[in-house]
Amino acid sequence: MPVASKMSGKRSSMLVPVAGAAATLAAVNCFVAPSSGQPAAPAAPQLRGNVRGVEAGSAGTTTAAGAVCGAAALAVAASAARGGARRQRAAPAAQKATAVSTEVETDCINAIRFLAVDAVNKANSGHPGAPMGQAPIGYVLFAEEMNFNPADPAWVNRDRFVLSSGHGCMFQYSVLHLTGYESVSMDDLKQFRQWGSKTPGHPENFETAGIEVTTGPLGMGVSNAVGLAAAEAHNAAVYNKPGLPLIDHYTYCIMGDGCCQEGISHESCAYAGHLGLGKLIVFYDDNGITIDGHTELSFTEDVGMRYEAYGWQVLTVEDGNTDVAALRKAIADAKACTDKPTLIKVKTVIGYGSPNKADSHDAHGAPLGSDEATATREQLGYKYGEFEVPQSVYDVFRAHAAEGAKKQEEWNALWARYQEAEPELAAQFKRIAIDKKLPEGWADCLPKVTPEDSGKATRLWSQDCLNALASTCPELIGGSADLAPSNMTLMKCTGDFLKGSYEGRNMRFGIREFGMGAVSNAISLDKTGLVPYCATFTIFSDYMRNAIRIAALAQAGTIFVTTHDSIAVGEDGPTHQPIETVPSLRMIPGLTVIRPADGNETSGAYKVAFELSKYKSMPTFMALTRQALPNLPNSSIANVEKGAYAVVEEADPELILIGTGSEVSLCVDAAKELGKKVRVVSMPSWELFRDQPLSYKNNLLPKDVPKLSVEAAVTMGWGEWADAFVGINCFGASAPGGTCMDKFGFNVPNVVACAERCLKGEKGVLSDGSQGKH
Amino acid sequence: MPVASKMSGKRSSMLVPVAGAAATLAAVNCFVAPSSGQPAAPAAPQLRGNVRGVEAGSAGTTTAAGAVCGAAALAVAASAARGGARRQRAAPAAQKATAVSTEVETDCINAIRFLAVDAVNKANSGHPGAPMGQAPIGYVLFAEEMNFNPADPAWVNRDRFVLSSGHGCMFQYSVLHLTGYESVSMDDLKQFRQWGSKTPGHPENFETAGIEVTTGPLGMGVSNAVGLAAAEAHNAAVYNKPGLPLIDHYTYCIMGDGCCQEGISHESCAYAGHLGLGKLIVFYDDNGITIDGHTELSFTEDVGMRYEAYGWQVLTVEDGNTDVAALRKAIADAKACTDKPTLIKVKTVIGYGSPNKADSHDAHGAPLGSDEATATREQLGYKYGEFEVPQSVYDVFRAHAAEGAKKQEEWNALWARYQEAEPELAAQFKRIAIDKKLPEGWADCLPKVTPEDSGKATRLWSQDCLNALASTCPELIGGSADLAPSNMTLMKCTGDFLKGSYEGRNMRFGIREFGMGAVSNAISLDKTGLVPYCATFTIFSDYMRNAIRIAALAQAGTIFVTTHDSIAVGEDGPTHQPIETVPSLRMIPGLTVIRPADGNETSGAYKVAFELSKYKSMPTFMALTRQALPNLPNSSIANVEKGAYAVVEEADPELILIGTGSEVSLCVDAAKELGKKVRVVSMPSWELFRDQPLSYKNNLLPKDVPKLSVEAAVTMGWGEWADAFVGINCFGASAPGGTCMDKFGFNVPNVVACAERCLKGEKGVLSDGSQGKH
Repeated sequence: MPVASKMSGKRSSMLVPVAGAAATLAAVNCFVAPSSGQPAAPAAPQLRGNVRGVEAGSAGTTTAAGAVCGAAALAVAASAARGGARRQRAAPAAQKATAVSTEVETDCINAIRFLAVDAVNKANSGHPGAPMGQAPIGYVLFAEEMNFNPADPAWVNRDRFVLSSGHGCMFQYSVLHLTGYESVSMDDLKQFRQWGSKTPGHPENFETAGIEVTTGPLGMGVSNAVGLAAAEAHNAAVYNKPGLPLIDHYTYCIMGDGCCQEGISHESCAYAGHLGLGKLIVFYDDNGITIDGHTELSFTEDVGMRYEAYGWQVLTVEDGNTDVAALRKAIADAKACTDKPTLIKVKTVIGYGSPNKADSHDAHGAPLGSDEATATREQLGYKYGEFEVPQSVYDVFRAHAAEGAKKQEEWNALWARYQEAEPELAAQFKRIAIDKKLPEGWADCLPKVTPEDSGKATRLWSQDCLNALASTCPELIGGSADLAPSNMTLMKCTGDFLKGSYEGRNMRFGIREFGMGAVSNAISLDKTGLVPYCATFTIFSDYMRNAIRIAALAQAGTIFVTTHDSIAVGEDGPTHQPIETVPSLRMIPGLTVIRPADGNETSGAYKVAFELSKYKSMPTFMALTRQALPNLPNSSIANVEKGAYAVVEEADPELILIGTGSEVSLCVDAAKELGKKVRVVSMPSWELFRDQPLSYKNNLLPKDVPKLSVEAAVTMGWGEWADAFVGINCFGASAPGGTCMDKFGFNVPNVVACAERCLKGEKGVLSDGSQGKH
Repeated sequence: MPVASKMSGKRSSMLVPVAGAAATLAAVNCFVAPSSGQPAAPAAPQLRGNVRGVEAGSAGTTTAAGAVCGAAALAVAASAARGGARRQRAAPAAQKATAVSTEVETDCINAIRFLAVDAVNKANSGHPGAPMGQAPIGYVLFAEEMNFNPADPAWVNRDRFVLSSGHGCMFQYSVLHLTGYESVSMDDLKQFRQWGSKTPGHPENFETAGIEVTTGPLGMGVSNAVGLAAAEAHNAAVYNKPGLPLIDHYTYCIMGDGCCQEGISHESCAYAGHLGLGKLIVFYDDNGITIDGHTELSFTEDVGMRYEAYGWQVLTVEDGNTDVAALRKAIADAKACTDKPTLIKVKTVIGYGSPNKADSHDAHGAPLGSDEATATREQLGYKYGEFEVPQSVYDVFRAHAAEGAKKQEEWNALWARYQEAEPELAAQFKRIAIDKKLPEGWADCLPKVTPEDSGKATRLWSQDCLNALASTCPELIGGSADLAPSNMTLMKCTGDFLKGSYEGRNMRFGIREFGMGAVSNAISLDKTGLVPYCATFTIFSDYMRNAIRIAALAQAGTIFVTTHDSIAVGEDGPTHQPIETVPSLRMIPGLTVIRPADGNETSGAYKVAFELSKYKSMPTFMALTRQALPNLPNSSIANVEKGAYAVVEEADPELILIGTGSEVSLCVDAAKELGKKVRVVSMPSWELFRDQPLSYKNNLLPKDVPKLSVEAAVTMGWGEWADAFVGINCFGASAPGGTCMDKFGFNVPNVVACAERCLKGEKGVLSDGSQGKH
């Protein structure tokens, strides 16, 4: 195989045998190929120089690779190391996927590479370099290791795969196509990045069957992988019984330098290490290139050492471009370590095989071009044309897919046995994970109050709701970013989800908001019917804003429970007082924002959020108060579902006051003072109200009646509902919460004064909080 | 000193001598107290059991502590280790601050503790536990180590201090008060967390002189510290000459468990390690308690190992509650390591001294209460009442402050010599750092174009602006989060700001947006006149949203340069296409958002941003296009400063089209088609337009003329300016940018159709992008 000058420096350094390699090579010749009738495994001299050790990073020493002698022998060796459920792969029956000649194996790997190269060239847009480097990982995972069934992408016990470096999505489309997912035909590949295609510029689970999560925003994918592995661990702990491993799969992930640098990966990976998620296997594609150039420019930390500090097992594959054996060995070692997640640091060359662009950021985010594609074909010895895949390659991938289908059949049989042996748990699993229904009458558990009941903070009503639901719905799982006693989010009926107690449902996310958001999204996208919630102060939703956005975009049913939702936070001051936070979240398409005003409205918020999560896999953002609020007349779960309703009815109003959350009772008080016919509307959710019939909306908020909004937040956007606004368009201040509300204008006299101006026809911002700054 | 039962377990384990301690103790007796005439240093037996080793974390071995024998001898030892500028402290003249009796030293430490306890009790709100644990660090820093002058908090060469765990701000107010800052009187302490006080619930640089940066949002402070240290390194590299160390100070920071867990600290601290910022010294207050309880619940990583992986020196102080000597030794070791930042892991007990609340989250965020305060006084042997500080304690802190004033005098003399020796650099320093002016005629360098000049993307105009300003204004420093070739943010006239080339101004932030934002904010808050910019894709401003918010709140003059500002991003798809991003940032008070439409408008954006940064220390957010745009008639820098202006004038319009950025030229094209009297308004900045005289606003946008806004973003908020809106209220899609714009309605026929509806009186959202989803 020709090696161009640009490559040779890097490759030749890789050819220096590592300690133990000589012994390994000696061992190779002793190994016997399986008597399979398939082409004999090639002899040692035919190995493509890819016998490598897998460095056990934790000790800094180098261990010998497992004895290797071509692909078939490797499979035996790796399989022996694996044991357990996967042992049968070594048996002759399973020879198809693994007893592959070196030549075909190389073609398989190159097929991934060239589908990426060709699709990016055709689109004249995209990222060919990463798939070219990651192709051997793709081959080992999708032609050998992973359990999946392209005919049923939703099979509940499939292995999960996440491409955290989502820009390299042609990697994923290539393997989905090669393994036979209907969602990605050759025509789809040719439509890469085009309008309406199934192959968008980043992997989108809501567009393409076989994609588990939406990636692209860096660091989000690996955090999703942590969430998927956490969901697996939880479901396994709840449902598995001796001899009945109902949920038993791995979560694989590939991430790049960008993911490693992003803070979110620190949060989620530290959390994964803390949890000891042994079935999480992450490949770090260590190609040394980012958009700005070589990683030395910005990224010189010791990634492996950092992951060891997190409590991960860290392995290294020195030559990820060709050394398939080392990849297999690393995966086997990862599986052998059951109490820690594993990071496999794979050294690859970005754009591997491209004579003029490999190992350069030129290969990162631009097409190779037709000439370079040809030159790369030549260099890698790939004999097939543009978008051409030899049948022998399809055969390998589809044989493995067929194995996956068989695995699902075996699982179906297991599920049948499980239903007999564990009828109660089976019924629960069926409802939650398969039928994805909520229990009959589940919402009856939510608290209902009258105005006579003493009021309390909506964060406390939320605690009641969560605890009622926790008992009724075992699929509820979640927690807070270290604010459980402030967010009031602990479920009393269950324990902590921790290493050794994965059956617990209280997640202890630590002070890691962004990681928490992405982990929670993935628990929903695991599609086993779990309903995840996560909590922090309203203001710190800023820290996980992109996770909230991705929940809405990728259709993840996360319930974002946030408390301390306005300047009424008080003493903690402006860094902790949301002003623009809630309004700005109303701008995210697909996100339902609810700011309840009392006990019934909080119950309504949970009713809506639960149904959105379970039935539509869509997120909800709740903004709850720190301070106590009275219970309102007319509030009810049903009224929350309408988004807005009259708290104080008035058939023929002269004025309408519209409030949300803590300002609704202020509006009620102001209405009493006004001495006019005033309707008071509570509007817990703009999104829900927008979805109501026009007649309902027009009856509640008639066009010709002056309307004043009152909300302790920026006024932007209120023009959709009101003529004039009371809000706060400046930052808050440190003082007791009641003082803050009063000083910034959220008091009866100011609302009354503004209402009178509104009655006189004044429009726009009548009170903006600036009085508090004087 | 009495030790309560709750404490004794923890303390006794700390009393086990570390390796080498015996030898150290032997050495103690050989040490001679300085012949100062001050009270003799106490003999070894009087030491408060605080002889400790400092663990050199990097090797995992334990080194002996410096020889210690009471405070005075310690000062000699530590000072000898320090050398250089601080050597004089060992001389008799400097005895005041350091030759302190053990008893007074203990009182000094306890004074910090009890001011915190008393202020939190009085406010009935706040966080006493952290200051109680951190008090010895405060003593060593503010009574011995740091150079500062309370009479001139703005002295340019002062040491910087950042309390990253900002909730413990009573720590900072206590030491500011004790050292004599006028900003924090005893009355101010008594007004802790009250309306209008100088002692808000988190440290706010814009409220309290002596506070460098605003902290509270966890992880932000330590990232600010990295930025302050980077600013120091840059200024030192630019200005220092042999014998003339004009800028030569340290940056100290205390962070807690929360900061360590937050992703932003990963980003900034990895960056600091990469840069090798040797004058950054961070104390990690390792107290093992977070709000949820003991850190074992969520946080079991090896923090020290992680920081070593980042390239930091890691030291450990085993007993931060009492072992002042070990703290001194650690600081000396930190200073001795000049090419790496240092993390000093200090094991403390939260709420140290409180018999019933120490080492518990009860001490974290709630007052101790009066009884417990009394019991704590008893336990710690503090004889003084509520808010009572003995003169002897003031004497110690103020003597050190007087030393600081002397240091500033010495620096003033140095500055005088510098001006003679280096007139040119001195003039530059004076303009930039002292007078904080921009060069005469600086804005003349900005590009000016006519409609005849060929158009290009505003990110390319931005590149021209940045490069022109980089040559004109050496205070411009910044870079991109690994998107320099996409954001077009490299300055060609200067090199990279990296280890060994701190004089360079191109910062290579890596794929670390949030860290980048906080580092950039701190470069502005360093108050040496630097103008920082930082860049990423518009959508990923989400990742650093809280840093943008804090820039606006804390008055940091960061220029946020973002590109790829709409669905016209194209192929990368909805994860990369901002929809709500720009509108949601318009909600942040104090942030100026500018979306320029062509070359002149981009120049105008930079004119505004530079002046805001330099003269008002306020941030600007720019949203720039990926795609080329034509140059417009009437566009100019002056018109951008007005926020909005007529691109196509029409004295008596029937209709007004209002666009921003890339949609302005679309409006111009649509106006031509309409065959009516149409005014086209470009509105690059809502905030700037709001600030115009009412007459200008009413003339440009008369109330009685129908107005249609056209912006490729969500429509929320446009009601402030227009009657009807063309926007996109759904997520985008992966396809070429032009296709996306067209499919989602940003084309001439659709704008014309909507304009005609607007002319007929239709209001509200006329086009919301949903046509693209069918």
